[in-house]
Amino acid sequence: MKNNGKNTNITVRGIQLHSLAAEIRYKNRLDLCLIKIEGQSNSVVRFTKNRFPAAPVIISKRHLKEIEPKYFLVNAGNANAATGQRGVADAISICEAISTLARCAKEQVLMFSTGVIGELLPVRKIISCLPKLFEESTRSGWMEAARAMMTTDTFPKIVTKEFELNGNRYSLVGICKGSGMIQPQMATMLAFVATDLPLSRKALELISGVALSDSFNKITVDGETSTNDSFTLISTNPEKTGLIDIGDPSFESAQNLISNCCKELALNIVKDGEGATKLVNIKVKGAWSDEEAKIIARSVANSMLVKTAIFAEDPNWGRIFSAVGASGAENIKQDKINIYIGEIKICHYGKAVEKLNELEVKTVMSSRNFDICIELNTGTFSADTWTCDLSYDYVKINAEYRS
Amino acid sequence: MKNNGKNTNITVRGIQLHSLAAEIRYKNRLDLCLIKIEGQSNSVVRFTKNRFPAAPVIISKRHLKEIEPKYFLVNAGNANAATGQRGVADAISICEAISTLARCAKEQVLMFSTGVIGELLPVRKIISCLPKLFEESTRSGWMEAARAMMTTDTFPKIVTKEFELNGNRYSLVGICKGSGMIQPQMATMLAFVATDLPLSRKALELISGVALSDSFNKITVDGETSTNDSFTLISTNPEKTGLIDIGDPSFESAQNLISNCCKELALNIVKDGEGATKLVNIKVKGAWSDEEAKIIARSVANSMLVKTAIFAEDPNWGRIFSAVGASGAENIKQDKINIYIGEIKICHYGKAVEKLNELEVKTVMSSRNFDICIELNTGTFSADTWTCDLSYDYVKINAEYRS
Repeated sequence: MKNNGKNTNITVRGIQLHSLAAEIRYKNRLDLCLIKIEGQSNSVVRFTKNRFPAAPVIISKRHLKEIEPKYFLVNAGNANAATGQRGVADAISICEAISTLARCAKEQVLMFSTGVIGELLPVRKIISCLPKLFEESTRSGWMEAARAMMTTDTFPKIVTKEFELNGNRYSLVGICKGSGMIQPQMATMLAFVATDLPLSRKALELISGVALSDSFNKITVDGETSTNDSFTLISTNPEKTGLIDIGDPSFESAQNLISNCCKELALNIVKDGEGATKLVNIKVKGAWSDEEAKIIARSVANSMLVKTAIFAEDPNWGRIFSAVGASGAENIKQDKINIYIGEIKICHYGKAVEKLNELEVKTVMSSRNFDICIELNTGTFSADTWTCDLSYDYVKINAEYRS
Repeated sequence: MKNNGKNTNITVRGIQLHSLAAEIRYKNRLDLCLIKIEGQSNSVVRFTKNRFPAAPVIISKRHLKEIEPKYFLVNAGNANAATGQRGVADAISICEAISTLARCAKEQVLMFSTGVIGELLPVRKIISCLPKLFEESTRSGWMEAARAMMTTDTFPKIVTKEFELNGNRYSLVGICKGSGMIQPQMATMLAFVATDLPLSRKALELISGVALSDSFNKITVDGETSTNDSFTLISTNPEKTGLIDIGDPSFESAQNLISNCCKELALNIVKDGEGATKLVNIKVKGAWSDEEAKIIARSVANSMLVKTAIFAEDPNWGRIFSAVGASGAENIKQDKINIYIGEIKICHYGKAVEKLNELEVKTVMSSRNFDICIELNTGTFSADTWTCDLSYDYVKINAEYRS
C-alpha cells in the first residue's frame, strides 16, 4: 500500500473529481471538492453518532434513503453545524444547484462539510464555483481532493493501491481528513474510499462494517466525537460485469484490501493528532468480555495523564494502572494485571517489576511508535486502540484555532 | 466561611494533630501527618470507586468495619498503590506500630497515602517518625496538616468556621489536597472535615452523602479518578452531650455548615487544577432526566476542546454544542438548545445568536470565574459541574511530575 507522495496519480475508473479554492474561510487554499460517479456504482455511507448532526449529515442521510448517490460535494472551513433550519435549507440549495447542472435528482447529491460550527455556509460562493468544478473534473484529482478537505490537518491523507484479481487490474484510493476530535464511534473525520472492483451492496455493507471497526472506530486523539463525521465507500463497475457478493472467492481479498486502506488512513489521522508527536497502540488482552476490553483500552487511550506521560517519555505506569481501575470495567483484579511498554514488562501482577531498567523503557518510549500492552488475566477477550500523546502543541493549536 | 490565611489557628476540641518532614519522597517538606481523636467521636469515611484501590484504602476499609477509628495517618509522596500484598503488609505494619504506641487495637488506625503509584512505602522511615508525631501533637496543627498532604498542589487548602448553635460555641475545620486527576465520583483527593458539634452516626452519614454530591463529586479537572481518594468526616463530642440526630432542630444547620465547607474545599481543588487559570461552572437546565443532566454537564466539563477554548477565552460555542451532542444523552434536540456564557446568550435554539457582540463574550471569559449555561428545553432536570481550563501548564506539570 503506497502512501503520501508516491503513486498519487492513481485513478479509479468511473470516478472524476476536481477541487478549487472557494474562499469559504481562508484565501488561497483548496476548500471545495466535487466527486462525481460516471456510470454504475454502489455506495455505502456511515455517519457520526453525535446526537446533533450537522445539516449536510441530515440532508445526505435523507437523500441516501431515496436513491444511489452520484455526486459528493465536500467543503472545508465551515461545518454547517448548529445552523438550524437555515443550515438545512442551505445544504438543500447547494444539492439542488448541483442537480440542475448535472440534470439529476437532487437526492443523487450528497454533501459533506467540515470546519467551524455555528456559522452559516457562504452558499452563493459555493454555488458560483460549481460550473468550474463540473467542467474541470478529471480522474486524477485525488490528491487535490485530499488537500481540499483539510482543516487543522498538517498533511493530506491519501492511500492508493493497484492490484490484480481474477486476471483483471483494479485500483483503490482512500482519502480522509481529521486530526483533532478523534474518538471511537467516529471522529471529526471525512473519509472517502473508492475502488473500481465491482462489489454488491451487501458485500459493501459488510466490508465497510468490518473495515470501520478495525480502523476509524479504533482511534482516539482527545475523546471527542463530532457533528459532521462520515465515511463513504464507493464501488464502481466500469465494465458492467457481475458484482462480487459475500461468499464469492474474491470477497475476502476485497475485504482485506479495503480494511488495510482504512486502517492506514486512520493511523494517519492519529499521527496527525493535534500536536501529536507519538502514535501508541494500546492493547488489552485477557479481558472478561469484549465490552470490558474495549472500555479499558479507551479509558487508557483517553487518559490525559497517560497521554502527557507518553509525551514526556516517562514510564509512569501507575497512570496506566489507575486508568484501568477507573475505566468502569468491573471484572478486573489488580493483582492479576501485567503491563508492558514495548516488549518490556513494567508491572507484574499489579506491582512494579523489580530491578526494572527504566532507561530501556525510556528508549522504547523515545521512538515515535510503540505499544502499551495490558494483560488482565481474567478472560479471553482483546481490544486495541491507537492513541497519541498530549503535547503543548495540542493546547496551542486548539486555543488558537478559529480565533 | 474563612479560608487560607485568616483564622487558621482554629482548633476542634477532641482532635490533636502533628505533621513533620519524613523525607518520603522529597527533602525539607512536610509529608507525614497524624490526626488523633482524644475522646468520644463518630466518623464517616468514603473511598474512591477506582477498581484498583491502593493498599491504605484496602486496609482502612477493613479496619472501619471493625471499630470506630481514633488515629488517621496521612502521607504524601507515595500512594502505596499498585504495590501488591507487600503494600498491604506495609500499611498493616504502620497501623500496628501506631496501635502499639497508642495502646489501642490496630483496627482503630486508618491510613491515607497520596503520591506516586507503584513504589513501595519507606516503612521504616515512617515508623521512626511516629513517636515524635505522638509527642508533639496539638490541637492547632491543622494548617501544617493541610501542607503535609500536598503533592502537585500549589497552595494548602483549609476552610475554618466558628459558629454558635443552641447557645454553644463550636468549630469546623476542613483540609484537603488535590489538583490533578479530579473527576465526579471522587478525585485524587484526600479530605478531612472535623467538627466538635456532636452528631450521631446516622446524621453524619446523611450529611456526608449530601455534602459530597454537592462538592467533591461535582468537580472535574481532567476526568481521572484515582486509586487513593478518600473523604473523612469526624464529629467529636467533647462534652459528652446528647448527639444531634436526623430530624433534630440543629440537623439542617449542621448539614449546611458541612456542605458549605466541602463545597469551598472542592472549589479550591478546581482552582488549583493543574495549570488551571479559570474556574467555570457548567450548568445544565431543562434536561429530560437527572441522569442526562449529569452526563451532559460532565461531557462538556471534560471536553478537551471546550477546556482549551476556555483557556483561549474564545467563545467557540460550537465545541460546547458538539460535546452536548456527543455526551450519550438521547433525549436532546439540537433545535431546542440555548447556550449562555455568563449572562450572554450565544446559541439560540441551536443556532448562533445574530449580531452577537463577541467582544462582550470575550470580556466575560477573560474573568477567572464564569458560568456556561446550557438550556436543553426537553425536561425539568438540572445539574452543574465545576471545571477548569486546559493550559500549556497542565501538560508541563504532568509531563514533568515524577521525572
